[in-house]
Amino acid sequence: MSTLGSIAIGIAIAEAGEEAETLISEARKLGYKAIRSQVGSMSMDKVIAAIETASRREGIISDTYHQEHALYHAIIDALLGVCRGQLELGNIVRTVGLSYSVVCGPIKSDCNREENWIMVVLYGTIGAPIKGFEHEAIGLGTYHIDTR
Amino acid sequence: MSTLGSIAIGIAIAEAGEEAETLISEARKLGYKAIRSQVGSMSMDKVIAAIETASRREGIISDTYHQEHALYHAIIDALLGVCRGQLELGNIVRTVGLSYSVVCGPIKSDCNREENWIMVVLYGTIGAPIKGFEHEAIGLGTYHIDTR
Amino acid sequence: MSTLGSIAIGIAIAEAGEEAETLISEARKLGYKAIRSQVGSMSMDKVIAAIETASRREGIISDTYHQEHALYHAIIDALLGVCRGQLELGNIVRTVGLSYSVVCGPIKSDCNREENWIMVVLYGTIGAPIKGFEHEAIGLGTYHIDTR
Amino acid sequence: MSTLGSIAIGIAIAEAGEEAETLISEARKLGYKAIRSQVGSMSMDKVIAAIETASRREGIISDTYHQEHALYHAIIDALLGVCRGQLELGNIVRTVGLSYSVVCGPIKSDCNREENWIMVVLYGTIGAPIKGFEHEAIGLGTYHIDTR
Amino acid sequence: MSTLGSIAIGIAIAEAGEEAETLISEARKLGYKAIRSQVGSMSMDKVIAAIETASRREGIISDTYHQEHALYHAIIDALLGVCRGQLELGNIVRTVGLSYSVVCGPIKSDCNREENWIMVVLYGTIGAPIKGFEHEAIGLGTYHIDTR
Amino acid sequence: MSTLGSIAIGIAIAEAGEEAETLISEARKLGYKAIRSQVGSMSMDKVIAAIETASRREGIISDTYHQEHALYHAIIDALLGVCRGQLELGNIVRTVGLSYSVVCGPIKSDCNREENWIMVVLYGTIGAPIKGFEHEAIGLGTYHIDTR
Repeated sequence: MSTLGSIAIGIAIAEAGEEAETLISEARKLGYKAIRSQVGSMSMDKVIAAIETASRREGIISDTYHQEHALYHAIIDALLGVCRGQLELGNIVRTVGLSYSVVCGPIKSDCNREENWIMVVLYGTIGAPIKGFEHEAIGLGTYHIDTR
Repeated sequence: MSTLGSIAIGIAIAEAGEEAETLISEARKLGYKAIRSQVGSMSMDKVIAAIETASRREGIISDTYHQEHALYHAIIDALLGVCRGQLELGNIVRTVGLSYSVVCGPIKSDCNREENWIMVVLYGTIGAPIKGFEHEAIGLGTYHIDTR
Repeated sequence: MSTLGSIAIGIAIAEAGEEAETLISEARKLGYKAIRSQVGSMSMDKVIAAIETASRREGIISDTYHQEHALYHAIIDALLGVCRGQLELGNIVRTVGLSYSVVCGPIKSDCNREENWIMVVLYGTIGAPIKGFEHEAIGLGTYHIDTR
Repeated sequence: MSTLGSIAIGIAIAEAGEEAETLISEARKLGYKAIRSQVGSMSMDKVIAAIETASRREGIISDTYHQEHALYHAIIDALLGVCRGQLELGNIVRTVGLSYSVVCGPIKSDCNREENWIMVVLYGTIGAPIKGFEHEAIGLGTYHIDTR
Repeated sequence: MSTLGSIAIGIAIAEAGEEAETLISEARKLGYKAIRSQVGSMSMDKVIAAIETASRREGIISDTYHQEHALYHAIIDALLGVCRGQLELGNIVRTVGLSYSVVCGPIKSDCNREENWIMVVLYGTIGAPIKGFEHEAIGLGTYHIDTR
Repeated sequence: MSTLGSIAIGIAIAEAGEEAETLISEARKLGYKAIRSQVGSMSMDKVIAAIETASRREGIISDTYHQEHALYHAIIDALLGVCRGQLELGNIVRTVGLSYSVVCGPIKSDCNREENWIMVVLYGTIGAPIKGFEHEAIGLGTYHIDTR
């Protein structure tokens, strides 16, 4: 049995390329929708917009308000983990370089397949805009997105 | 090359038992101090105290204020990721069941071995005090702890 | 045309008795589920539990995790409006006396009737535990709950 | 008997035009100062400045620091209810369209007419900068402004 | 010329006894009301109640809601400086030992003597409940209290 | 015996010129590194950058990540005291005019001289961008920076 979190965290922390692709394939075989990409910025809005755009383009969410709303709140919650206290980047002189996954499906792979949740995991570095002056961070947000 | 974060996240999300033990052994071979345990509670203070006690008992930190201070702030930052916005559990009717790792060493395994950072990763579930009414969460905090 | 918010705010700020009952009846005729009650406490958990219990007992939500999760987040968001900054009551020496409504249905009464949202509105007083040393407050939270 | 909150909420949620004008007239007959207007923006500073400017121009507050300070904190508290957790709009990719009231007078219409409080109520929608991808929100802030 | 802040900070950070008494006397000669005391606790509510009780008993505030409200918000703002992010003590395993001043009068000693503000300054240590495992902290809150 | 806090607060609240210079000299005689300067802005990032730049230029911190990290967190904590709840300036229409000190050394002047902490104290005014519409504020942040 897999969990939505183990799948989404696994994909977000995997190395780009073969390792990530294998995990995405496995997730899809279990019936999950899953994408992975990167974003780096000092602007919070660019991070949010990048994840929303990729999710829509890749068909993780449909063009409905309630799905967009669930994704948005999942992104904000994941950013709270990365930012730890203040949802701010450039205006408090810090920048992020993040891999992220967006995964959609049941909370556990072996039960209650009618309820789908969306999960966003962000993983990477946060720090001063000086090379090497940064440390790792992670964040996860999840909301119910639909009922099959 | 490994990073402090990949080690600490890996240990926290590993299954208890052989998988976790193997990762801890590998981390120690790279020169990292590392522990892993579980804690579940509706009381934030019990979660914090459990991690502090285990870290002292297992020798992750020494009995000095600056090391305790670094660990404490790493725990609080990790809890901010788990709690996403409000550092509260039982008083807002939610409970956590968490695995956690505490890892100590350089930010990257292959460089700057004079600077040691401490990292706390929390991974598990958060939700209502009703079985099955919970979802996954993760958090990570890290501070500099000492210079060799 | 009515909106979910105008219905839920109207019921929460109405006087108990005939005025509130009339508004609830009108909401039900439009296809909305709606309840109204009161709760007063210095304990945040008692406020949350009272609203959750009433909502389950009155059939506003079913006994599923995703509906409980949506209600929970709506309550927390509404409390953020009442508390304005710190999600705390007795431990910062203040108490609330609140009327509340929980309403379920489409965002607007005349369209998109497939998407149901749940909304919690809290209205009443917050202040020192001294009679008359209190002022009014209001809060609203809303999440998608189901698709018909 | 009316309360400052019932007056200010009533005016803020009323439909623009006759309904709002009637409520403002009634409030003024009871000795309250009251205004109502609209503001929509992705910039928090524009929302705040619009309410401050209208309040000064309409004579709700005098040109004294302590009155400006009370109004400012009432606006911020009201925005906390609208924003629910993070006092941010455009930089986390959301926008508001708000009606607001600013009302000044005693906490209850029938007593203690020496103490005047200022109250700001914001009501409208918050959401993604996409038409229809938004839900309702409300917020209220109030501080003592003067003693007659 | 003195400022409300320089008086209140000076009294709060002075050594108990002669140094503090001299500063309080000087403040009173300038027309300010001023008190100083200590409080130590892991319970936020005990800290707040101690300052409120002393302020009422010593006549810094009268028994009116708007003065209690101004004092309360000044205490909360000062605690935000001491706590830096989370308004919590014992439930996140930390304790405070604080000196505090409560001072009432004009913002500047040489002008606008009609507007009185109340200021609370907290100064002392915050840390783990282990002797020596603590560092210093300070906080200041101020609100308008009355117009002469 | 002096404490790191009494030194850093003393320097930050001193009048610019002779009074401040004397306190800095005394601190240096006790083995502390200490600087003092001013910054005023509606941009949080300019405040942070000014303090970081001065600290590096004056040799308070070395060009290492862990020292920059400790300074950064001390600045953020000090700003939380000044801002009291929301780490924002211009985007919520307020501005600061601050004196600040950055001091480095043991927590107490007479013991444990191996542990050095860095402390940032900010003191000045915060308020509307209108002359005279501002009040005083203070904030302090401190982290361990190095072990001798």
